[in-house]
Order: sequence, then C-alpha cells, then structure tokens
Amino acid sequence: MSIHTFEAKTYIERRKILIENLESKTILFLGNRESSVNFKDNWYPFRQDSTFLYYFGLNVPNIDVVINTSNGNVTLFGDELTIDDIIWTGTLPSLKELAEKVGITDVQPANKLQSTLNNHTLFLPPYRPEHEIRLSELLQKDIEFIRTRSSIELIEQVVSQRNFKSKEEVKTLHDACTLTSKMHFEVMSKAKLGMHEFDLVSIAQSFRGKHDVNFSFLPICTTQGHVLHNHSYVNKLNKGDMVLLDAGLESNLLYAGDMTRTFPVERKFTAIQADLYQIVLNAQKEAIKASRIGNSFVDVHLKSAETTVQGLIDIGIMKGNAQEAVHAGAHTMFFQCGLGHLMGLDVHDMENLGEQYVGYGNSMVKSKEFGLKSLRLGRKLEEGFVITIEPGIYIIPQLIDKFYSEQKYFDFINYNELNKFRNFGGIRIEDDYLIKSSGIELLGEPLAKEIKDIEAIRSNIS
Amino acid sequence: MSIHTFEAKTYIERRKILIENLESKTILFLGNRESSVNFKDNWYPFRQDSTFLYYFGLNVPNIDVVINTSNGNVTLFGDELTIDDIIWTGTLPSLKELAEKVGITDVQPANKLQSTLNNHTLFLPPYRPEHEIRLSELLQKDIEFIRTRSSIELIEQVVSQRNFKSKEEVKTLHDACTLTSKMHFEVMSKAKLGMHEFDLVSIAQSFRGKHDVNFSFLPICTTQGHVLHNHSYVNKLNKGDMVLLDAGLESNLLYAGDMTRTFPVERKFTAIQADLYQIVLNAQKEAIKASRIGNSFVDVHLKSAETTVQGLIDIGIMKGNAQEAVHAGAHTMFFQCGLGHLMGLDVHDMENLGEQYVGYGNSMVKSKEFGLKSLRLGRKLEEGFVITIEPGIYIIPQLIDKFYSEQKYFDFINYNELNKFRNFGGIRIEDDYLIKSSGIELLGEPLAKEIKDIEAIRSNIS
Repeated sequence: MSIHTFEAKTYIERRKILIENLESKTILFLGNRESSVNFKDNWYPFRQDSTFLYYFGLNVPNIDVVINTSNGNVTLFGDELTIDDIIWTGTLPSLKELAEKVGITDVQPANKLQSTLNNHTLFLPPYRPEHEIRLSELLQKDIEFIRTRSSIELIEQVVSQRNFKSKEEVKTLHDACTLTSKMHFEVMSKAKLGMHEFDLVSIAQSFRGKHDVNFSFLPICTTQGHVLHNHSYVNKLNKGDMVLLDAGLESNLLYAGDMTRTFPVERKFTAIQADLYQIVLNAQKEAIKASRIGNSFVDVHLKSAETTVQGLIDIGIMKGNAQEAVHAGAHTMFFQCGLGHLMGLDVHDMENLGEQYVGYGNSMVKSKEFGLKSLRLGRKLEEGFVITIEPGIYIIPQLIDKFYSEQKYFDFINYNELNKFRNFGGIRIEDDYLIKSSGIELLGEPLAKEIKDIEAIRSNIS
Repeated sequence: MSIHTFEAKTYIERRKILIENLESKTILFLGNRESSVNFKDNWYPFRQDSTFLYYFGLNVPNIDVVINTSNGNVTLFGDELTIDDIIWTGTLPSLKELAEKVGITDVQPANKLQSTLNNHTLFLPPYRPEHEIRLSELLQKDIEFIRTRSSIELIEQVVSQRNFKSKEEVKTLHDACTLTSKMHFEVMSKAKLGMHEFDLVSIAQSFRGKHDVNFSFLPICTTQGHVLHNHSYVNKLNKGDMVLLDAGLESNLLYAGDMTRTFPVERKFTAIQADLYQIVLNAQKEAIKASRIGNSFVDVHLKSAETTVQGLIDIGIMKGNAQEAVHAGAHTMFFQCGLGHLMGLDVHDMENLGEQYVGYGNSMVKSKEFGLKSLRLGRKLEEGFVITIEPGIYIIPQLIDKFYSEQKYFDFINYNELNKFRNFGGIRIEDDYLIKSSGIELLGEPLAKEIKDIEAIRSNIS
C-alpha cells in the first residue's frame, strides 16, 4: 500500500479546475476495492483507480469522494479503523490524516455517502464489476443503466486535464521510465542461452521487488515476438532466438513506464535479424522526428509504417511504392497494431474512459480498419502529451496464410520471399516521450537500442 | 496460464461422485474471468476458481460448466479463438482439446449457456463481484437473491469431496510445500542486517519466478510480527529485530503451501526472543501430537494455547493455573487468532463456501468469542484432512492497553512484567500436515525450526 503523494496543493489545484469547469454538479468518484483471487479475503495487490489518484492521491482501498461543484465541497467517505481492526493491521494513519495530505478536510463515514447523491450525479465509466454493482446500489439504477449512462462531460473534463502532464508529473514519469530502463538493462545483460522466458521475468521481478514498485502491466517476455499478447513464459532461449521484452514499472506515485527491447540470445544478431531490426529502428527514428506539436499521431503512425515498408522493399520482402503500399494497407501484414499510445497514471492512459475521447477527441473519429483500429492515439500532438513510440515487425504465419488465401496485397508483398521467414518471429522497439514546444524529450535514462550497442551488452554475458 | 492437469479419469471420478449424490439437478459452475487492475484490459494474473479446478482442472478464463445430474451430461461453455484472436495470441490449444484433457467431450459456444439453466439451478456462493453480476444475468434474478440463494446441498457435497485429499492431491501438496520450504530457506539464509522487508519479499519473488509458480497469498514479511496482516514491507532490518515470514507457493496444479518462520536478523536470538520462541515451538509440538483422527481441532487449539500459557507462566509474564487461564480466555492477549486451517486448492481451503460448512460441519457451531471466532477449523479431524498448525505469540500494545483498561485477566497476566516487552513484536511457526490413520505427516521438505538449527543457518550469513 503506497501512500506517496504529491503535495496537497497539487490535488487542490486539479480539483479547482474540475470544479470551475463543471458547474452545479454532484460528482461521484469511486475508489477501488480489494480484488479477490480465489476467496473473498485472498487479494490481488491493491491498485487505486487512476482518476481517483489524479484528484485525490490516496492509494488506499474502501474510500470514495463526492464533489459538489455548486459550493466546492469535497468529501471523502470511508470508515476509520476500530480498535478491533488495529489488532490485525497495527496502527495506521487515520483517514483524516491521509485526507489532509491531499488537502481534503471533510471526512465522513461510508454510510453517509448515498444520501449525498441524486438522480443527476455524474460518474465515470465502470471497468470493474465491483464498480457496476456499487454504482447500481448507490444510485438505485439497474446495471444496464450504469453501463451506458456515465457522464461524457465528466469524461471530457478529466481527459482535458490528465492529457497534459505537469512538471511534477513529468518528473515522476522520468522516475518510472528510468526504473523501467534499468530493469530492461538487467534482463538484457543477464539473459543466457538455455534459460527460459520465466527466468527473465524473474530477473525483472527481482528488480521490481528490490525497488518496491509494481509492474504497470503484466510483462510480455517471449522468444515468439510475433505473438502480441504472450504471458505464458514457457519457451526456452535457444540458439538463434531473439527475446522480446515489453515491460514497465510504476514510479512510487504510480505513474507508468513502458518499454520494449528485442535482443539476440547469442552475442550477435543474425543477418536477417539485423536487417529487420534496423528497419524497425529506422521506423522509430522517423516517428520520433515526426512527433511534433500539431502533427496528428495517425500521420506519424502511417509515416513510420512507410519507413518500415521501404525497408522491406529494400530487402525484397515487399515491392512497389512504399506510400502506395501503406495507402493500400499492405503494411498491416507486418505491423498489425498501433505505433503508440498516451501514457500517465495508466500505461494506456485513461483507456477506461474510452479511446475515442482520450486518443481522438471531438474532431477525429477512430478508424475501424484492420491496423488503424488498434491505434489508440490518433489526435494532433499537443504540448504536455506523454506518448510511447513502438513500431514493430511481426511475422505471423496465420496472417500470411489468411492474406494469401484472400489474394491480398499481391502487388506489394513477395509471398515467396516472405514465406522463407514465416517462422522468424517479431521485433518491437519502444520508448516513452514527452511532447514539448522545443521538441520531443525521451523519458528515463536512455537504454541501448542501436545494434552495435546491444551486441556490446550481449557480448559481456559470461 | 497453467494448463497442468491431473489425468482425465481423476476429474471424471470426482464428477461421478457429485452426480451420484445430487439427484436430478442442474448445477452451474462459473469459471473465473480476468480481473482488471486500472482499466478493463490491464489484468491481474489469472487464477481459476478452485472448485472449478477441482472438477474441471482448466486454469483458463471465460469458460463455465453445467452439469445435469439427471442424465450425467457435463457441458463446457466457451468460445473458440477466431483467426483474428490468433493474430494476437498465437496458436493455443482449442477448448475442445483442453476439455478432452479433463474428460469433457461436450463443448458449446458461450451463448448457449443460458438456455440450459432453469429456476432451480444450483450454484455456489459468489465471492467476486463478477460472479454476482453473471449469476444475476444468467439466472435473471436480482443480486440480493444471488447473494443469499446459493445451494447448501451443493456446498455440502463439494466440502465432502474436497476436504479429503487423495493420493495424487497429497503428492502435489507435497510439491507445493517443498517449494514453499525452499523459498523460506532462501530468505532465511540471505536476509541481512540493513536490508528492508521488501528485499526479502524480492528474494521470495525471485524464487517464485524461477520455479514459474504463484504465491498462494500475498506474503506477510515483517519485523513487526505482531501485526497480523502486514503487506507494506517498508521496515528496515535492524539489530535485535526478528523477521516473520508467512508465505506460500502453489504447485503447478495450483494446490497451496503455507509456512511461517520467525528468525533473528542477527546470528542469535536474544534471551527473551529465545524464551518466547521456544514456547511457541513447544505449543506447535503439542498441537502436532494432539492432531489425531477423532480429536476436534478446537480442542487441539485450546491444548496448544494451554502449552503457551504454561510457558508464559514459567517466565513470569502470566500467572495462576494454565488450564483456568485458557478457560477464562486470558491466552487471547497473546494468541488472538486460530491455530490453523484446512488447506488444499485454496490456502484457506474453500473459505468462499463458508467456514461453518467447511471447518465445523453440521454437528458443531463456530464460536463468536474473541480468539475462537478467528479459528477457521474446529471440527473433528478425519483421515485425508490437510491442515496448517501455526501457533504464535503476538504482543500487541493496543491490546494490552485495552484489556488493562477493561480490568481483564488480572488473575492471569502480570501486566507489569508484560509491559516490559510491550514492543517485543510477534512470533509464529507454521507447517502443513496430512492427517492419516497412522498419524500425522509433514508436507514438504522439513525446514529448520529448532533454535539451534535456525541459528546455524543465520550464522552462515556473510
């Protein structure tokens, strides 16, 4: 249970903006409860809701807040420990003391919450079943109502604040990314032939534990880099394999880091690995260059895809004109997902509020096409955005067969050549950046990504 | 995602007994879903429901089973991966293949589930909010109904099977306990002055990761052993401290281990630490001796408490007659919780089904008195039970002050003497046992618990 917080004035200021922009409203912010594993009192590690953390800072279960914007009242609801509780938990700070840390002076027992709500109470979309039940019970509405009637004006207000990172947020994001970078270095410098994927996750786990922070998401650690969601960790690191590690740590203020590196199990990349790796790296560099204020991230995504396609044309796996290939969608054979996403208190920042509101806004509509439908961020970049840039090449045998059987992209893909590499796997390179008026800033300590730098680290393995 | 299972015949046999004992019923077994952390698709590690694992073995999300005991039909409901899914997940075994591993041949799409249910469908008590919502939607009943109308006859049937461990269950429980024992040894042999509690959790995490298994519950690792539920890990290991580690690992079949050791940060226990430690160890030995078929665990608990009290009388912290002191409840100053609990697929086995049904049964009622109300197991011990035995001494300053102000136990407690040790902390020693007709069997490889053996390990720390 982390009780690291910013100073009280940070939360007071954030709430002031919220209150000023939503007139005459009652707003309910549900804090998270403990999540049960296999019986009620056997819990997963607690994690507070991120919007709750943004406005109220407290990573503590069983508290909620109601804001009345008519009079500016902010009330925290929760029950103080009794002497009977303290026998089991030891002396902990009281809710009154915790609330003071984040500038809240009005603390009421949990059973007073419901009476402060009304038929027009605003709430955010529930993403845990506990939220649906609690909202249903508190507001006396059925669950279907709760699922469909969260407040768009509240969502938009939250997005308009959380999308722009303050100096102190940038500082803690740097911390998260530095921890993340160091964790990747640990794994990259200790992975050995004959280990299993879970041994590498264990190295990451140790680093995480040593720094007493949490993963920002379940790590992806795999020799099968083309499998985009892989949490099984059972494969052995064999000669000729590459390892793809996509993992991030949270700072002690629970802001996320998120990085990916792909490196050879042996000292050096093979020739084809080096070729494809360099293409992905070039695509990342192109995307970094294009990530400027005013450019839409959809365009950055497509620009980066074009660099990837040009690289694949150069080595004979694709053919034709790169721009036309991307226009036709042929890059989605190799790059099925998005170039990046917003990041903050959530690794996919505010994904629970809806990608349309967060990553696209009012003036753009998220595409439903294969490839673009997985792009979480499309909108024009603005000062203060924090984003990931994570191009990749993923060679998915099932997709080759599917597209081939559908006679797709015959003008742009050399299927004969591609089929030689159908079991190649996948490569991704991912770093985190802050968009500034003066350009783009890498978050966290830089980690090797040039081929020669990675091979230098891998050559030191005993 | 673990897909280790017993052979199909194990599950078929377990279901056969269930079907024979519950005539003409439709029984719905809900499998667990993924649990969201801070947005819907950011998940905690998946863990299947334990009763689901008992009858159907599959540690896979998004599947449910309906058993019709009239005709013996067992149908697994879930959706096979589509080609679009496979692009993200890679090729995984189909549900049909998985179901065959556990002897189920009838696999239907998820949307066929509801039509097989009726007004009399039996279900187990929900312990996750997702269960309440799904049962409410599937059975078209409100959540209050769902919370109160789980089937007692189904609970009793499940308890009557899961309480008795088969040879193959004992084998995997031995595996869990051996892993647990080795993890404790790692921590005990690496903990050093100046480390923090989280460094020790990190050692345990590494061991866990290396063996690719999960904790059976969030570890308690603390220099404040009297705080019974302590998950913060922020204290430094100082001179004169003891470390209490209560942690367990699951086997690859997801059966639990659960052990506690308390050891000095330095090479040797201090005199008072050694005195109190020896009392707890004697109480454990007395409990092990008393844990025989036909003895009720309430009596074992009280017998063990009496040994503890006698030890405290011998060193002057308590006074009077030990048996009378326990009868009056004076031992609860030092031993506020239960001596042990049943263990199996859950660390507190079947706690979700209700402690009265699981740990007490029809012929005993669980006490509501302080001390005994925290005893999860009271019933007569039977062959095949697996239990923990975990006496302790916890010196809780707030409880001393509370009992003193209530003028409690003045005939049995030397408050002046006790107050000298009010910041002593706490000690617990815990191992896991199988009740057999030939006696009691320790599960897992033995781990040092005599003072001299622990000091021998601690003396090897560099």
